[in-house]
Amino acid sequence: MGIFLKARPVFYAVQFAFFLMGVHGRSLSITTKPDPDDAAATARWLVSQNSWGVLNTISSELGGAPFGNVVSFSDGLPNKGSGIPYFYLTTLDPTARNALKDERASFTASEFPLKTCGKIDPENPTCAKITLIGKLNLVDKKSEEAEFARSALFSKHSEMKGWPKDHDFEVYKLEIENIFLIDWFGGPKPLTVAEYLQPKLNSMAVSR
Amino acid sequence: MGIFLKARPVFYAVQFAFFLMGVHGRSLSITTKPDPDDAAATARWLVSQNSWGVLNTISSELGGAPFGNVVSFSDGLPNKGSGIPYFYLTTLDPTARNALKDERASFTASEFPLKTCGKIDPENPTCAKITLIGKLNLVDKKSEEAEFARSALFSKHSEMKGWPKDHDFEVYKLEIENIFLIDWFGGPKPLTVAEYLQPKLNSMAVSR
Repeated sequence: MGIFLKARPVFYAVQFAFFLMGVHGRSLSITTKPDPDDAAATARWLVSQNSWGVLNTISSELGGAPFGNVVSFSDGLPNKGSGIPYFYLTTLDPTARNALKDERASFTASEFPLKTCGKIDPENPTCAKITLIGKLNLVDKKSEEAEFARSALFSKHSEMKGWPKDHDFEVYKLEIENIFLIDWFGGPKPLTVAEYLQPKLNSMAVSR
Repeated sequence: MGIFLKARPVFYAVQFAFFLMGVHGRSLSITTKPDPDDAAATARWLVSQNSWGVLNTISSELGGAPFGNVVSFSDGLPNKGSGIPYFYLTTLDPTARNALKDERASFTASEFPLKTCGKIDPENPTCAKITLIGKLNLVDKKSEEAEFARSALFSKHSEMKGWPKDHDFEVYKLEIENIFLIDWFGGPKPLTVAEYLQPKLNSMAVSR
C-alpha cells in the first residue's frame, strides 16, 4: 500500500506526459506565417493563431442540414498550440445539441482575420484556409484533458470564466480525422492527421 | 408582330422589376449597426457588410460530414444588399461538388471581422452572428440573376473577374429557408425569411 501511495505521483506524471504527447500532438510555437510548402506548419500556425472560427454540425432540427456556428476556440496556451481545437459550449445552443446526437463535425478557420493576406481576396488560395473534419465530442469535465482545455480556452478568452454557471458550458474537442488545407495555388495540400499532430518541421519560423 | 417587338422591352423591364422584388428581397443600405432589437435590420447589415464567411455543405466524400469552407460572397453592390448571398465557385473545390450532389447548405458570418464588437469575445452573444440555412443552387449563367450576381460579386471582389477561365467558376446562390441570428443575450432572435427579405425597418440607420 505504501509503495502504491509513493508511486502514485510518478504514475500520474507519466500518464500526463503520455497524454500530452499522444492526445494533444506536439506542442508548438509558430508565430509567423510558415512557407506554404510546409503544410503541417502552416496548418498548425493557422489553428494556433486564430481565436475563432466556424464549427459545423449536422442539424436534425433542420432536416439534417449542415449547420455552421461562429465559436471561440483554443488549441493551447498562447503560442503553445496542441493542434486540437477545444470549444466551450452549452446545449442551450444548437451546435452542442447537434453533436450529442450526431458527432460528425468540421471546424473552419481563415488566415484573413490574421491580417497577413495583404490585399488579396479572402477566397484567393494564397490566403490560407483550413477545415479540420472529424468528430465533436464532449470531454469528461473531471479529466486532465478538460483541465488543460479550460486553461487553453480561458487564456485566450478571459471572459469565458465568468459565463453563466446555469448555462452549463462544457469542454468539447474535435477528434480530427481529415484535414483540408489550401495555402497556395494547385488545390488542397496533402496532409495527414499524424503529420499535423507530430510535424517534422522545416520552417525557420517554428520554435519548440 | 410589330406590336410584339415594341412590347418586348416593356415586358423585359417588368420582368426585371419582378425579379428584383421577388427573388432578391428589398434592396437596402445599412451601413451602421442597427439596434439589436431590430432582428431583420441586424441580419441584413451583417450580410451586406461582410465580404466573406463559411459555406457549409454535406460531404459525400467524407462520410456525410458537414464541410465548412471559407468563401467570398456578395449579396449586392456595396451598400445595396439584397439579402441573398451569391458565391463564385468551381467544381475543382469540394463545396460546389457537394452542393451538386446534395443541395442542403448553410452560410455563416460573424460581426467580429467588422470590428464593431469592441473588446468582447467573438462568442459573446452581443457580438452578432448569423447562419442562413437552405439550399445551395447553381444559377443559370445566362440568366439576369447571374448577371446581377456577377456585378454584385465583382464589385466587392475585383480579382474574381480575372480568375482562371479554365476553372469554370459559376454563380451559386443560397435559397434561404431558415435563419439563425444571435445579436444579444436570450437566445436566437425569431426571424422569418419573409421578414429578412422584406423587412419593416425600425432602425434609423437604414436608408432605402
